[in-house]
Amino acid sequence: MDDSLVRENVGVMPYLVAASQVLGVAALAVTGAWLSQYRGGFSWDGPEQFNIHPLCMVLGMVFLSGDALLVFRVFRHETKRASKILHGSLHILALTISLVGIIAVFQYHKKKNIPDMYSLHSWLGITTFTLYLLQWILGFIMFFLPGVAFALRSRFKPFHVFLGLSLLVSTIATCLLGLTEKMLFALPEEYAKLPSEGILANSLGVLLVVFGLVIAYILTRDEWRRPPLPEEQALSIDFKTLTQGESPTEP
Amino acid sequence: MDDSLVRENVGVMPYLVAASQVLGVAALAVTGAWLSQYRGGFSWDGPEQFNIHPLCMVLGMVFLSGDALLVFRVFRHETKRASKILHGSLHILALTISLVGIIAVFQYHKKKNIPDMYSLHSWLGITTFTLYLLQWILGFIMFFLPGVAFALRSRFKPFHVFLGLSLLVSTIATCLLGLTEKMLFALPEEYAKLPSEGILANSLGVLLVVFGLVIAYILTRDEWRRPPLPEEQALSIDFKTLTQGESPTEP
Repeated sequence: MDDSLVRENVGVMPYLVAASQVLGVAALAVTGAWLSQYRGGFSWDGPEQFNIHPLCMVLGMVFLSGDALLVFRVFRHETKRASKILHGSLHILALTISLVGIIAVFQYHKKKNIPDMYSLHSWLGITTFTLYLLQWILGFIMFFLPGVAFALRSRFKPFHVFLGLSLLVSTIATCLLGLTEKMLFALPEEYAKLPSEGILANSLGVLLVVFGLVIAYILTRDEWRRPPLPEEQALSIDFKTLTQGESPTEP
Repeated sequence: MDDSLVRENVGVMPYLVAASQVLGVAALAVTGAWLSQYRGGFSWDGPEQFNIHPLCMVLGMVFLSGDALLVFRVFRHETKRASKILHGSLHILALTISLVGIIAVFQYHKKKNIPDMYSLHSWLGITTFTLYLLQWILGFIMFFLPGVAFALRSRFKPFHVFLGLSLLVSTIATCLLGLTEKMLFALPEEYAKLPSEGILANSLGVLLVVFGLVIAYILTRDEWRRPPLPEEQALSIDFKTLTQGESPTEP
C-alpha cells in the first residue's frame, strides 16, 4: 500500500500549487491596495460602498473558489469525505462573500441612481453567480447526500468538474470586464496616458489571468488526479460489480 | 478492425460540433451586422478601418482557430498527417486574418492620434496573439518536421493542447473586453439605457462565450479523443518497446 504512495508521480504540482497561492494573495493585495490607495478605501454606508464589490468578488469568486477546486489535488491522501467537506465549505464561504459583494454594488447603484444590468460585465457576472449557486446546490445533493447511486454520481461528476472550472474562468473574465469598466468610468481621459492607477489595474487583470491558468493547468493534468484510496478502490469495484454485473475476479 | 469503429462511442459529439458551427457562424453574422448597421460598415482607408479589427479577430482568432482545435475530433478516422495539415492550415489562415485585423487597428489609431497599448484589452490581446504565433511555430517544429523523437513529441503534446485551449479562452475574454470598450467609447451615455446596439453587442459577447464553452467541452471529454488508427497503434507500440525497453508481448 505504502509502495503505491511512493510511486505516485506528483511532479511539479506542489510548486504550482504554491505559485497559485502566491498569485492569489498577490491579486488580493493589489485589489486592496488599489481600492484604498486610489479609490478612497472601504465603507458600507458611504460612497466607498462600491469598493466592497471588487474586493469581495476577488476574495470569494476568484481566490476562495479557485482554492476550493484544488482541494482534491492537494489533500489527495485524506478521505474523500473530508475533502468534500472542505471543498463544499470553501465554496459556501466564497458564495457568501460574493453575495455581500453583489449586494454592495446593487445598493450603491440604487443610492446613486445608476442603472443596473446593462453591461456585458453584469450579464456575464450574474449568469456566472447564478450557475455557481446552482452548481453548489446540485453538487451538495449529488455528492454529499447519502443514497445517490454510485453510477449516477459517476455520470454527473464530469459535468460538475467541467462546469466548476468553466465558472472560475468566466468569473475571471467578468473581473477583467469590471476592471475595464472602472478604468473608463473613473479615468475617462487619463487611462489612455497609462497612469500608475491604470498600470496597477491592468496588472491586477494579468495576475487574475495567470492565477486562473495555473489552477486550470493543475486541474487538467490526468496524472495529478486524486488516486482512490485503497478502501475506496475496493468499494468502487464492489459497486461496479453490482451495477455492471461483472465477475469480481475479472481484472 | 471495423468492429472497433462501430463500438467507438462518440455520443452527442456530432450534435455539439454542429452547435459550435451554428454558434460560430451566428457570432460572425452578428459581428458583421452590428458593424455595418450601427458602425458605418467597412473600408480600409476611411474612418471605418477600425471595424476591420473586430471582424477579423472574430473570424480569425475565434471562429477559424476554434475550428482548428476540433480537427482531431471531427476527422478522427483520417490519417494523422492529413489532420495535422488541416489543423496547421486553419491556424495559419487564422493568424493571417488576425494580423490584418491588428494592423487595421494600429493604423486607425495612428491616423486618429489615439494612443496604443494602454488598456487591458490591448495587453491581453497582444500577449495572446504573440503566444498564438509562438505556439504555431513550436507546433510546426515539434509535430510536423520529421526527425523529432516520438518521446519528445509525447512530452510536448499536453502543453500544446493546454496552451491551445487557453489561447482560445483568452482570445474570447479579449473580445469581451473590446466589446465593452467599444460600447463605453461609442455610447458613453446611451449604453446604460440598454439601446438596441448595446443589446446586440452584449448578445455577441454571450454567443462568443457559449461558442468557447462548447469547443472546450468537446475537447476535454476523454472518451472523444481521437483513437489511434490501427497502423499508428502498431507503430507506437514499436516505439514504446524501443524507448522503454518493454517486451513486445507484454500487454
